[in-house]
Amino acid sequence: MKIPRSHPRYTSLMTREKLVKAWKAGTVVPEGLIAHGRGEAWDYLFGEETSAPALVAEKAAAAFLVRAKRPAISVNGNVASLAAREIVHLAKAVPARIEVNLFHRSDARVRRIVRSLERAGARGVLGLHPDTRIPRLDSARALSHREGIHGADVVLVPLEDGDRAEALARMGKVVISVDLNPLSRTSQRATVPVVDELTRALPNIEKFVRELRGDSKEARRIARTYDRDGNLRAVYSFLNWRLRTLARGPRRRKR
Amino acid sequence: MKIPRSHPRYTSLMTREKLVKAWKAGTVVPEGLIAHGRGEAWDYLFGEETSAPALVAEKAAAAFLVRAKRPAISVNGNVASLAAREIVHLAKAVPARIEVNLFHRSDARVRRIVRSLERAGARGVLGLHPDTRIPRLDSARALSHREGIHGADVVLVPLEDGDRAEALARMGKVVISVDLNPLSRTSQRATVPVVDELTRALPNIEKFVRELRGDSKEARRIARTYDRDGNLRAVYSFLNWRLRTLARGPRRRKR
Repeated sequence: MKIPRSHPRYTSLMTREKLVKAWKAGTVVPEGLIAHGRGEAWDYLFGEETSAPALVAEKAAAAFLVRAKRPAISVNGNVASLAAREIVHLAKAVPARIEVNLFHRSDARVRRIVRSLERAGARGVLGLHPDTRIPRLDSARALSHREGIHGADVVLVPLEDGDRAEALARMGKVVISVDLNPLSRTSQRATVPVVDELTRALPNIEKFVRELRGDSKEARRIARTYDRDGNLRAVYSFLNWRLRTLARGPRRRKR
Repeated sequence: MKIPRSHPRYTSLMTREKLVKAWKAGTVVPEGLIAHGRGEAWDYLFGEETSAPALVAEKAAAAFLVRAKRPAISVNGNVASLAAREIVHLAKAVPARIEVNLFHRSDARVRRIVRSLERAGARGVLGLHPDTRIPRLDSARALSHREGIHGADVVLVPLEDGDRAEALARMGKVVISVDLNPLSRTSQRATVPVVDELTRALPNIEKFVRELRGDSKEARRIARTYDRDGNLRAVYSFLNWRLRTLARGPRRRKR
């Protein structure tokens, strides 16, 4: 079905099509489609724009990435399908290692995702030959690289599940999540929960990385003053304000 | 992957599995999986319980169905996979015609869905031999039955898309939607937007149908006093209250 550019939900529908295509190509799993739907609903509530508190978290994320000794970015099927280019740009700006990490892992899927990242310009993508495990995760999901996520001090985990975010945090890593659900276990467990849509969040973080990488004093100040719980409360307040606005005047139905 | 009964998200994960299975069987399309994810996120926000305003809308929906001359229920792939039994029970209680209506239509899919409804006890399900069209919808999506949705005065459209809900409302029908997103075009366009999860909403409506079908005075009173916009505002207020509660205490991260 051809979607006309004039459709009120054009961007959302095109993104959906992109994911359905990726699912047909074997990059995205059905559970990934459902997870995307959850994100869509939250983004609807946010008005499909980056909120002020999300921007603050994105700047903090950039500060932690810039200050990291061994930063890594975790990529799954949805992330690769929706934002391969943005991931590669951010990884180059930091610079950070990229590691493919799948909840529903198969070597074929890892290979396809590595290739799609390489097509977007990535080099040295990890994931195919894991040499260690993350503690407290069941077998397939625990596989990891010493050079990548396992050895990282700061790890960006966009669209990650709660168990994995928690396991990484328990290893003492700074975990930066990108997840539109501020109530998710991922957002609750992350050190820096970025509550924003992936393709908006990544370029924002990249922009801040470019600003901060020459200014270590400012990066340190931001990392130190970042107030995680206060930031999450600000996200809730923003949603509250959105709902209050909506409650005041639901559009009259046209009949 | 076997899901243990003790898992905090057991019901949600089982429902997800049911849909993935239905997708493998060709009843549900990938877009249906994404749509289900949207519903999951909203339901999370509602606390996975029927809100008081949703219950009010469900009673109003029952009143309109009981008072209808030619009530019809529209069923798509997700509805058939998640609530075939509930649909059949409600259709018998009203009684109402059932018509299968698909956004991504193919005769094979219609046939599979008709069969799954018949296995749940439905008789005379429409959908396979449409004899007319709903105005202002593109070709495949407009196909309809005179005996079913096209000729109905009151039509229940669970998990329907906005265009179709709008087209039916423009025909002068009372459109009852079941959609967890109070901001969706479907909820905005419906005469009676029921903002609740499908397998909770349908039995509630059925219960009210059984209460009201012997009491035409009460059914009339409820249909007359139902305040659609006020009800939607109450839904927003409920969400606001939920978020305020959640915002007061974001769980401290355990490190």
